[in-house]
Amino acid sequence: MIDLNSDSGESFSSWRMGDDEAMMRIVTSANIACGFHAGDPGVMRSTITAAAAHDVAVGAHVSYRDLHHFGRVFVDVAPAELTDEVVYQIGALQAMARVVGTPVTYVKPHGALYNTIVHHTAQATAVADAIKEVDESLAVLCLPGSEIARIAGRKGLRVVHEAFADRAYNPDGTLVSRREPGAVLHDPAEIGRRVVRMAADHQVVAADGSVLDLDADSVCVHGDTPGAVGIAAAVRSALTDAGIEVTRFA
Amino acid sequence: MIDLNSDSGESFSSWRMGDDEAMMRIVTSANIACGFHAGDPGVMRSTITAAAAHDVAVGAHVSYRDLHHFGRVFVDVAPAELTDEVVYQIGALQAMARVVGTPVTYVKPHGALYNTIVHHTAQATAVADAIKEVDESLAVLCLPGSEIARIAGRKGLRVVHEAFADRAYNPDGTLVSRREPGAVLHDPAEIGRRVVRMAADHQVVAADGSVLDLDADSVCVHGDTPGAVGIAAAVRSALTDAGIEVTRFA
Amino acid sequence: MIDLNSDSGESFSSWRMGDDEAMMRIVTSANIACGFHAGDPGVMRSTITAAAAHDVAVGAHVSYRDLHHFGRVFVDVAPAELTDEVVYQIGALQAMARVVGTPVTYVKPHGALYNTIVHHTAQATAVADAIKEVDESLAVLCLPGSEIARIAGRKGLRVVHEAFADRAYNPDGTLVSRREPGAVLHDPAEIGRRVVRMAADHQVVAADGSVLDLDADSVCVHGDTPGAVGIAAAVRSALTDAGIEVTRFA
Amino acid sequence: MIDLNSDSGESFSSWRMGDDEAMMRIVTSANIACGFHAGDPGVMRSTITAAAAHDVAVGAHVSYRDLHHFGRVFVDVAPAELTDEVVYQIGALQAMARVVGTPVTYVKPHGALYNTIVHHTAQATAVADAIKEVDESLAVLCLPGSEIARIAGRKGLRVVHEAFADRAYNPDGTLVSRREPGAVLHDPAEIGRRVVRMAADHQVVAADGSVLDLDADSVCVHGDTPGAVGIAAAVRSALTDAGIEVTRFA
Repeated sequence: MIDLNSDSGESFSSWRMGDDEAMMRIVTSANIACGFHAGDPGVMRSTITAAAAHDVAVGAHVSYRDLHHFGRVFVDVAPAELTDEVVYQIGALQAMARVVGTPVTYVKPHGALYNTIVHHTAQATAVADAIKEVDESLAVLCLPGSEIARIAGRKGLRVVHEAFADRAYNPDGTLVSRREPGAVLHDPAEIGRRVVRMAADHQVVAADGSVLDLDADSVCVHGDTPGAVGIAAAVRSALTDAGIEVTRFA
Repeated sequence: MIDLNSDSGESFSSWRMGDDEAMMRIVTSANIACGFHAGDPGVMRSTITAAAAHDVAVGAHVSYRDLHHFGRVFVDVAPAELTDEVVYQIGALQAMARVVGTPVTYVKPHGALYNTIVHHTAQATAVADAIKEVDESLAVLCLPGSEIARIAGRKGLRVVHEAFADRAYNPDGTLVSRREPGAVLHDPAEIGRRVVRMAADHQVVAADGSVLDLDADSVCVHGDTPGAVGIAAAVRSALTDAGIEVTRFA
Repeated sequence: MIDLNSDSGESFSSWRMGDDEAMMRIVTSANIACGFHAGDPGVMRSTITAAAAHDVAVGAHVSYRDLHHFGRVFVDVAPAELTDEVVYQIGALQAMARVVGTPVTYVKPHGALYNTIVHHTAQATAVADAIKEVDESLAVLCLPGSEIARIAGRKGLRVVHEAFADRAYNPDGTLVSRREPGAVLHDPAEIGRRVVRMAADHQVVAADGSVLDLDADSVCVHGDTPGAVGIAAAVRSALTDAGIEVTRFA
Repeated sequence: MIDLNSDSGESFSSWRMGDDEAMMRIVTSANIACGFHAGDPGVMRSTITAAAAHDVAVGAHVSYRDLHHFGRVFVDVAPAELTDEVVYQIGALQAMARVVGTPVTYVKPHGALYNTIVHHTAQATAVADAIKEVDESLAVLCLPGSEIARIAGRKGLRVVHEAFADRAYNPDGTLVSRREPGAVLHDPAEIGRRVVRMAADHQVVAADGSVLDLDADSVCVHGDTPGAVGIAAAVRSALTDAGIEVTRFA
């Protein structure tokens, strides 16, 4: 059994990004932008509606407030303010989900915030505090071994570990930087086999050929290019063919 | 018995507006900005906290999305989008109020949106739809005789009528435009007497001297200048001296 | 001789819109977004650079400040503020154009602002004032017969009239509303013939079959869909085949 | 001879900050917000107009794009993007200054950007590149010994060193962190004497009592509180009384 998650609802205003409709037929959890790096109230409604129609779990994809850089750069916001900004985003998404008639069940930080709270204790604490305060039944989808995983767990929040379908791993379990060659995999068949091994054997082959233990409850697939939709579909097929059930963690 | 409401939480980023702390000792309902015309997540938390500390009811002061003009100009946003924008704002405030431990009990539209939905049927319907969808127990604080009052009532929402302490009225019950001389009253004693008459006799003397029937459950007082705080305090004293209880409607 | 203009530089942050590179090989004037409805400083630089590389004239595509609705809804901003907002946008684009090494030669209002100042005298005056103040050598690209054309002309600004390649006209010279069937034409060959007639005979056949006089110095073609690029190319070919020179007005 | 500079034009939308009118009677250089951390087109016009009326030099107070945190937190924006964002801001201010009829003569980075480019080579280079590209006659107002001073100087830009009237200095010439006690001085007479010593003897007494050489062409005074205006006036008086001319560097 494994969950597949994907970033969703990242269109904004008149700009489109990704094919949410196609991805909702593949994934089991949708990380939905809350308007701080992408998304707007109308996009949030239509994305949640699509998720609900396909029985996909709805998560809050919270971010630094930075539409201008799509939440992709570090912002050294004070922890107390970050907590409030995360509460705000979760609340806005919860209201829209209530209107649609489906619950928000988890939180996944986005982009630079995701990467920062792998190691930045104060901001990781701020994010965990927000989730704890606003709804302690929300799970936190994050990198195994990260500060956010450790702190959220200690606060009693449910921590869901994720792996990345198309990213190369270093021998220590961190991701190979996108600036390195080979950081991102492109072959659907290879990616499919990889995810099957993650789900069946809890292992992944690192960039140096060593075999890594990897305990993931969810695998992140991307949906923001037509090719990515094909890869996601290949991953799903490979899992099904291997007799692994693709089902939401939440 | 009468409620006193005031716009609150309109500071933003490093800018301060009004003296929320002082006003929370005077009013019984606080219309709290939700980040679209003013307010930010941190200001929302501190304002709700102050309201809760003084047993002041918390309302969502929803607006067009327009920090650059403080929500003071008409925006011809499509009704479906307006509905979603209002849901978003209410949800964000509800989450912050839940964190603080006090409920959001009503919605009051702000500025140009407030004025527009006195007569603009499509936008009034959009606002009422948002409230109905997100939480039908929320009351709507609005002008008697307005489209929003009519439509919200028809949808089964609780409608709370408000009067303005320091504004001159036309004989037809509309407000004298701020561009006219005498549109805004400044004498605390006169304003106090006026509000007592509103509360006790449900009447106000219009600009032409005629006496108007005015059925208000709440009176709006302003708090964004030091003088305004003094006026609000005078209003509260005048009501108490007249034996009228100042208490939240919600 | 005729100019072809197109909206350009409407990507924003991580979102792409249109194929600016393809369009720069077709058009002679590029209306470049200035960050208020679309565009950001990086997009402005790359779009101006592409325009300069293909000897395409650079215009400021000024807008209401409204990224959230792509400048497509009316905003009732005060005229004095609108003037300042237009000055700001033109100045930002001029600086980027100076850096690239090409001048800004004209201004074309965008979206809801374009439509509003066809008839809204105060906002049309505000836009004309901004252009007059910041650089009176800038031409104004606008609808023939509009308030902005009349007011800009009276202020001594150069007025450049534009026609729309793919839009149906009413017998009075206004555009058929997009809400009407047949408002937008789709057949490249038909659109090509239409633009040739506009350029050669200064005529267009209106929706009711009547022949309209139309005095246009520039024809607007769209570039925000792959199909649109094909139409724009067809228009350019039809003009060239008819012996009409496609050249910038400025 | 010494220049006095102050942050100006930091009001925004309906929010006021500082007393620009009062400060224009005291300082000789006004660092005017360009809309990225504070200021808007209307505020920019009125502030430049006030500066011009008092023969105060106009500088571009450029910032990270972050109204929500007033430009006070580090943003890890890519250098190429930062360059474009600085060009954009300078251009917008130049256009408004041209409209008013006064030139922009220098650039002073704001807040977190100011602090970052004291040591962050890539962002310092990005800012210097922007100034060099857009108008190499613009001076750069910055901290002596900073990366931005070094890089801007190497690129041939005029570097103007500034000192801070009311801030305590470490023995190495850096400022005592605001988190330390005694970081900010409050006594107008003491601050006045300090600035006289800076201007006359190029010295300041550090927090540990040691005497520091300090070569400043301009001294920054604050204007965002009523008390600050009094301090600024005291500084000006002390300089005049000491026979030191207060005059713009540019």
